[in-house]
This record gives sequence, C-alpha cells and structure tokens, in this order.
Amino acid sequence: MQIKILAFDVFGTVVDWHSSIAREIDRMQLGVDGNEFALAWRAGYQPAMKRVMSGELGWTLIDDLHRMVLDELLAKYAISSLDESQKRHLNKVWHRLDAWPDSVEGLTRLKSRFTICTLSNGNIGLLTNMAKNAGLPWDCILSAEVFGKYKPDPATYLGVAKIFDVAPEEVMLVAAHQDDLAGARAAGLKTAYIERPYELGATQKKDVSPNQENTFHASSIVDLAATLGC
Amino acid sequence: MQIKILAFDVFGTVVDWHSSIAREIDRMQLGVDGNEFALAWRAGYQPAMKRVMSGELGWTLIDDLHRMVLDELLAKYAISSLDESQKRHLNKVWHRLDAWPDSVEGLTRLKSRFTICTLSNGNIGLLTNMAKNAGLPWDCILSAEVFGKYKPDPATYLGVAKIFDVAPEEVMLVAAHQDDLAGARAAGLKTAYIERPYELGATQKKDVSPNQENTFHASSIVDLAATLGC
Repeated sequence: MQIKILAFDVFGTVVDWHSSIAREIDRMQLGVDGNEFALAWRAGYQPAMKRVMSGELGWTLIDDLHRMVLDELLAKYAISSLDESQKRHLNKVWHRLDAWPDSVEGLTRLKSRFTICTLSNGNIGLLTNMAKNAGLPWDCILSAEVFGKYKPDPATYLGVAKIFDVAPEEVMLVAAHQDDLAGARAAGLKTAYIERPYELGATQKKDVSPNQENTFHASSIVDLAATLGC
Repeated sequence: MQIKILAFDVFGTVVDWHSSIAREIDRMQLGVDGNEFALAWRAGYQPAMKRVMSGELGWTLIDDLHRMVLDELLAKYAISSLDESQKRHLNKVWHRLDAWPDSVEGLTRLKSRFTICTLSNGNIGLLTNMAKNAGLPWDCILSAEVFGKYKPDPATYLGVAKIFDVAPEEVMLVAAHQDDLAGARAAGLKTAYIERPYELGATQKKDVSPNQENTFHASSIVDLAATLGC
C-alpha cells in the first residue's frame, strides 16, 4: 500500500506555539513572564479538552477552550488591565503562530507528491487563519471540528481515510508527539515522528528519541520530504 | 460591515463541468454523445439530492449520488462495457474538472485580500482532489459535508460565518446560480453573481442577466477581483 495522504498535527509539529506566545506576552508588558505564561496556557488545554471528551462539557471549539484557560490565567496572575476586545485579540494569538523555519519549504515539497492536510484539534477557522498568516500551503484543512471528536479518538484518524476514500494505511500522520502517533497507529495509519526539541522553549528540552514503531523518524519536515523523495 | 470571507460555489462557477465531462465521455467511445451524457448526469443530481433533503435517503456524499445517477445512465444508454474499476474511475471525473480560464488568476488575486473558501455540495475529498488537479488556491475547503446539510439550507451559509467567527454580512457567496445566491441573501450574506453563459455547453446558452438584489455582478472571477480592487 502506497502512502497517498499526509495528515499533519499542527501545534508544535508545524508551528512554534511556545515562542510565538511568549513573545506576544512579553511585548504586552503584563508583568508576567512570557515563557511561564505560554507553558501554563498550553498546559491548561489538555485538561479542558478532557472535560469535553468525558462529556462534562458539550462539544467546544479550541478557540473557546483557549479562552476559558486564558480567563483562569488572567485571574491567577491578577492581570486586570485588559478589556474584552484586548482579551479576544490575545486569545487569537493561537491564529498567529509562527511556522518552524523548515515547515513552509517541507510542506511545499511534500505537496508535490502527496495530498497534505491538517489533522488538528484546532478549529477550522483558527487553522485557516494560521495557514494564511504563516503561508502554510495545505491542500485541505481537516480538524476535530469536522469529525466532532478530538484526537486521539480513532474517528479522527479513520475520518481522514474516509474523506479521501483510501485505506487507513494509505494515510500517514506526521506529528511531534508520540501519543498522537500511537493513536494513529492503533487506527491502522502509517506514522512519521518529527523532532521538535524546543517545542516547550529553551528551558525544557524535549526527549526526541526515536520510537521504532513509527514508519519514519525525521529531524524536520524538510528531512521528511527528502526521505520521501520530494 | 466589511466583506472578509469569499465563499465560492464550485460546479459551474469555478469549474467547467460540462466540457470536462463531455470530453471524457467522447474519448471513451461508449456510443453516447458526450454533451447529452454530461447534461443528463448533471440533471440527475438535483433530484438525487432532493431525496436526501426530504429524508427519503440518509445523508449521502455527492460522490455516491453521482454514482447512483451514473448507474442509471449506464443502464438507460445500455452501456455494459465498463467493469467496476472503470465505473469508479469514470465517477471520479467530477474530481478532474477543468477550471474556467479566469478562475486560477481571479482566485489568486482575491486571496491576497480575502479568505477564499469553497461552499459546495461536493464532498471534501472531491473538492480537494479537484483543487489539486486544477490548481485552485483555496484557503479552506468547506462543504455541505462539514455542515451535514446541502445548500440552500441556511445552516450552510451561516455555517461559513460561524466557522470564521464573523457576522453573516461579512461573508459573500460567489456563484453562477441565482437560486444559490438567493439562499445566501436570505441568510444575510452578501452575494456576487458570475456570468457563465456556457455552463451547459454551446448548445444551451444560459441567461446571465443581472439581478439587482446581488451586491455585485461580474463577467468572470478576474472581473470580480478587479471590482474589489485586487
């Protein structure tokens, strides 16, 4: 079975959420450390999403989960200087994340031989704005929002195969997170791991050692493109 | 209110289904006239979709509706020379439609100032394959498949506004069909009509006279881009 579709995790894999958010927070001079705030915001997202997955919260877009966590953090850090429109603008920093330096070149090369799409828990509007802002050349934007389930629900991985009318093994998930890749493998997809040692910033270097269960292991998206002959 | 999002009808508005299909049928030498077959295939699609909208059929992708109509036509014209894989390939001719000569330039210009997306009853896989084949530079592919409703259901038009977190009047539907534009207007969207006098081929020239209720009337997508200052 030939790989036809490359589905990409986005936050951390294609875009550098940590430095983009830390920089914006530092620029705003709110009296909180950008690195700390970025890590706390991202850390709040998994528990918020788990509340949706457990049924405690109804289906909620990531934009709204980000806002719930943001409001908690503004309270925690006693930041009261922002009005509603400033909070809305700050919450959309997730739409303005910078790509990793290799992402645009790597995706452009891969697009010449494969259909490249997102498979992110981020909502469609967020992913579209991000792509426009960062120049990400997706063929198609797929999201948990399309499937009504968050990754790692198998419905998301299998949903990509169904949308493109191919077998699960003709789809490869590309991600910088082993748990996401494990979910994709369990659903029968191929998997490629991308090393992003500084996803959490310079102060918390990530373990990026290979897992032999993945189909490919690459140091960047450009490296993956080279491996796949693009 | 400023227009931010341009949502495009696709079949007939951006791509020339009639000549693409007529040409493929003629090339196959099935003993049926390409022009007649293309018109019959397209004509069968609205009644098939109405069976879904009425609830007689469950939710069905356009690929599957196209196949139902194709099987009826193969029977009607007594064409028995195609095996299953040839039928599957022929059914996917809708993924291989040519763009109108102005579409790629017009969309590329509009993309510099607006978010451009599809809003088609075609399924996501079909629209993605078509975009890749014809070079259509969409920011995002939206489809009835995302909303679980076909146009002209208001949920589709309003769904675009919701996805991008904008007001309905910040979205403009661009289409070559007055009934589609009427549906969008009723939901509060702006509308632009594109003249496609030969949508049904050279033998059935369409009435493309302006309707004053539309926000814009353009002779092509390039003409619309010029009107909007792109």
